[in-house]
This record gives sequence, structure tokens and C-alpha cells, in this order.
Amino acid sequence: MKKNERVCAITKILTDNPNRVLTYNYFSQLFDASKTSVCEDVAIVKSAVEMMKMGKIETVSGAAGGVKYLPVVPDEEERAILLEIAERLMEPERKIQGGFLYYSDILSSPYYAQRLGKIIAGKYLEQGVEYVVTTETKGIPVALESARFLNVPMTVIRRSNKVTEGTTTSMNYVSGSTNKINTMYLSRRVNLEGKKVLIIDDFMKGGGTAKGMMNLMEEVGAVIIGPCVIFVTEEPNEKLVDNYLPLLRMCTSLNDKEKTLVELTVK
Amino acid sequence: MKKNERVCAITKILTDNPNRVLTYNYFSQLFDASKTSVCEDVAIVKSAVEMMKMGKIETVSGAAGGVKYLPVVPDEEERAILLEIAERLMEPERKIQGGFLYYSDILSSPYYAQRLGKIIAGKYLEQGVEYVVTTETKGIPVALESARFLNVPMTVIRRSNKVTEGTTTSMNYVSGSTNKINTMYLSRRVNLEGKKVLIIDDFMKGGGTAKGMMNLMEEVGAVIIGPCVIFVTEEPNEKLVDNYLPLLRMCTSLNDKEKTLVELTVK
Repeated sequence: MKKNERVCAITKILTDNPNRVLTYNYFSQLFDASKTSVCEDVAIVKSAVEMMKMGKIETVSGAAGGVKYLPVVPDEEERAILLEIAERLMEPERKIQGGFLYYSDILSSPYYAQRLGKIIAGKYLEQGVEYVVTTETKGIPVALESARFLNVPMTVIRRSNKVTEGTTTSMNYVSGSTNKINTMYLSRRVNLEGKKVLIIDDFMKGGGTAKGMMNLMEEVGAVIIGPCVIFVTEEPNEKLVDNYLPLLRMCTSLNDKEKTLVELTVK
Repeated sequence: MKKNERVCAITKILTDNPNRVLTYNYFSQLFDASKTSVCEDVAIVKSAVEMMKMGKIETVSGAAGGVKYLPVVPDEEERAILLEIAERLMEPERKIQGGFLYYSDILSSPYYAQRLGKIIAGKYLEQGVEYVVTTETKGIPVALESARFLNVPMTVIRRSNKVTEGTTTSMNYVSGSTNKINTMYLSRRVNLEGKKVLIIDDFMKGGGTAKGMMNLMEEVGAVIIGPCVIFVTEEPNEKLVDNYLPLLRMCTSLNDKEKTLVELTVK
């Protein structure tokens, strides 16, 4: 393989495996090339990826040295993506009777799920996340993409007790939207004991679901990171949860006939 | 930017945007480089990607010419991934009382979801898929990744009527596993009229859910592609659905005390 073909292959392999160290030895054997050549190739990839603001390439030197791709989204790109989503959420036909907003299409689109997942992963790269957890259903695509960019497993907390999950740990919670007591379930086959778990949820009004997820994580002995919430309503101002990271804030009460205002919460 | 660096950037951009034509003009402007240079760069990417069996690069010549990356998984790689999943499914601790098998961890892992999604996308590249549809919950990650590789939106059919979906179209179906009549719901805000929709489901026993999804797609005027099913049980031999594409077949009755046998259904 020629040098620029190796550069192409290294780029593809690194970005297919975000947040994972691949050793120089691995590439050296793969291409039947010297480690010196591989180091030069990696330097080119690093320079191009960083020049184009497509992420970061971190190299680890030494005998067991290697390289990893970090999915860092530049502030201006994050802002542009979130603004685009905010614009779309303000489309009047998204309003649903009862004070709700239709956004399933946005969160289940691979385009936005990938971009939101990358933004979220980038914010938690330094925190040693070992697991991503979400509650079904609408947050699953973004949680999956966040987990993919963090290179960790993802698990889904169910809203009803499913036989296919085996025995479960359950947690009651009060839904902020409806004020009803509900129960969430996590399979006991998922071992989160002592694990650093990033909680991701799609929507927060009162914070009841997020609080329930945090209580459930405590119950199973996990170390909580987050929660990160994609959409949060301005009202009520007091949430049941304190240290959450919201990406977008919905400003007008969704009950109003006025246009919904959606604004960025970060930078 | 140097040639090597452009090769890196083109690789990253193409593989981040599978099944999408990016024009030579786009790259030419992005790098402030001549179209001739860009064509040479693309030829290098094509050669490396295909040599490493990392997919296919298709070029469209002419004035509006461009290039796209196709996520084609080589047969031997597909076989290796499916065999790895089969092996894991045969772990005895996965058996659940009542004849079920625990596999949520596999389908919600970004590692397997990405690989399965790529395999599925590769099988339907020629069929002009415009939408991917699945039923919640366990199939969502693989459906998302399939949609991402096909560069189309994904939508989730709900198993209960959710206020956040707005008005819905509903379809009754008989679950093959429980013989009960259930209902599935699709938001009317998702317009599938005349669209080529690939149906993906995680598990098929009798085929009741798949049949329901197909009926629902007919109801909303979609053109059905698939269904593609990840796991299918050997029994019953007669399914309610005919032309499905299964990836893995579970051979021993899950009720048996014997080890579950899981085998590949393709090649």
C-alpha cells in the first residue's frame, strides 16, 4: 500500500472506532509497514483532522504507543446544529393538543441522532463514562450514538416489565407531566455496580423521570454522570433534579397558542 | 492542504455520509483545490477503501460528477460478525423462563448495532429505500444504524398510543408468541405515502408483529421492502409472513433444557 492509501485506511479505521486506542503495532502489522511509517501516517491524519475541525487525534507514545480519535465538535458547529433543531421545533404544525410538541422525527433521524450523540459524547470524554443509560423510547437513538462515540455499551430502561429482560430491578417515579406514579425497570442481567453511568434523556419538564433514573442507578450501585437532557422546558423553573445538562430550552409554555420558542442553553 | 491531508479529509467526510453523493465541486471548494486534484484524491481513497474491503466508492463522472461511499460488508466479515453473535446467544445464562432468550445487551450495544446496521444496509443498497421502520423497542438501535448507512430517515412504530406522537394510525395484530391481540400505532405526522419503506424487526416467532407492520405500511400507502428480521425461530416453520430476510436462526425450541442452537441463515 502506498502512503496516501495507508492515510485513507487509518482515517477510516480510527473514525469507525472513536475513543478507542489502536496501537501502532496493529497498523504496522495490518499494512506490513514499519512503525516509523505508521507514525508519519498518523501525524498526517492528526494534522488533517484537526485542521478541518473534524475531531481530535490523540497519540500515546512509547513501546505500547497508539492513537485514538476523539469526537470533539467545535463550538460553532454545535451551535449551528442546535440552532437548526431549534428552528425546526418552532414549526407551528409540531404543536400537539395538551401542551406537547412532536419531535420524534428529529430524534429518530440518523442525521440528528449522530450529530447530537457526537455533541453529547464530546462533553463527557474526560469523565471516564463506562455505560450510557436511557429510558425508552424517543431517547434511544441519541443515547446509542452517544455511546458509540464514547465507545461504551448502552442500555435501555423499560417503562413496563418485559419478559425478555428476565428479572428486573424496578423503581417508582412520579411523572412530572402527568403527576402519576409510574414504574421503570432495568434488567438484572445488566451489571452497573460501581460503573460510571451517563444518563441521557430526551425531554425534561418536572424532572420526575430523570429523578427516577437517578434513583434506579443508585439502587443498582452505579456512579451517576449527568443526566444530560436534550430538551428541557422553562416551566417549572424548579426541577426535581439539580445537576442536569440541557441542550435546548423550550421557553414558551407549550400550552400557549403563541409560537413555541426554543433556544440554546449552551454557549 | 497537502494531498495526503486531503485524502484523509475526503475519507472522513465520505464515510461520515454513507450512500450520499458529494460532488467534486464541493470538495474542490472545501480545499480550494482543482477538480483534477480532487479526482486524483478520490481515486486514492477508492483504491484504499476497496483494497482494505472497507466498502465501495462509487464515482459519478461528468460536470455534476461526484462520489459516494457505499457500506458494503464482505461476506467473510458478515459471517464472522453473525457467528460471533450466534456464539454469544448460546451462552446458557441467556435463557429466560417461558422460552425466551435475553439479547437486549447485544442489540443495544453500539458495536453490534453498527455492524448489523451496516450488514442490513448493504443488502438493500440497490432497492432505493427511502425510509426505515421498526417497532419499539429492541430493534431501534439496529434500525437506526441501518438507516444511517442507507442515508434515510427512521421511524418507530409504538406499541401503545402516545400523546407525543399526535394523532396516529393504528393496526391490530396477533402476537405470535402470546396469541393475544395487540395494537401498534404510527404517528400521522410521518408521511410514508408512496415511499419505499424497509421494515426491520429484531425477532420473529410466528410473524404476527411483522405481519402487523406490513399491514400498517399498506394502510398508510407505503411500498414495502423487507421485512428484514435479525433473529428468527425455527419453530413454527410456517410464519405469517413470506418474504422475510432473517440473519440468524434459533434452532432448538427455546423451551428445551438443551442448549439453544443459533445458526446463520445467509451463506
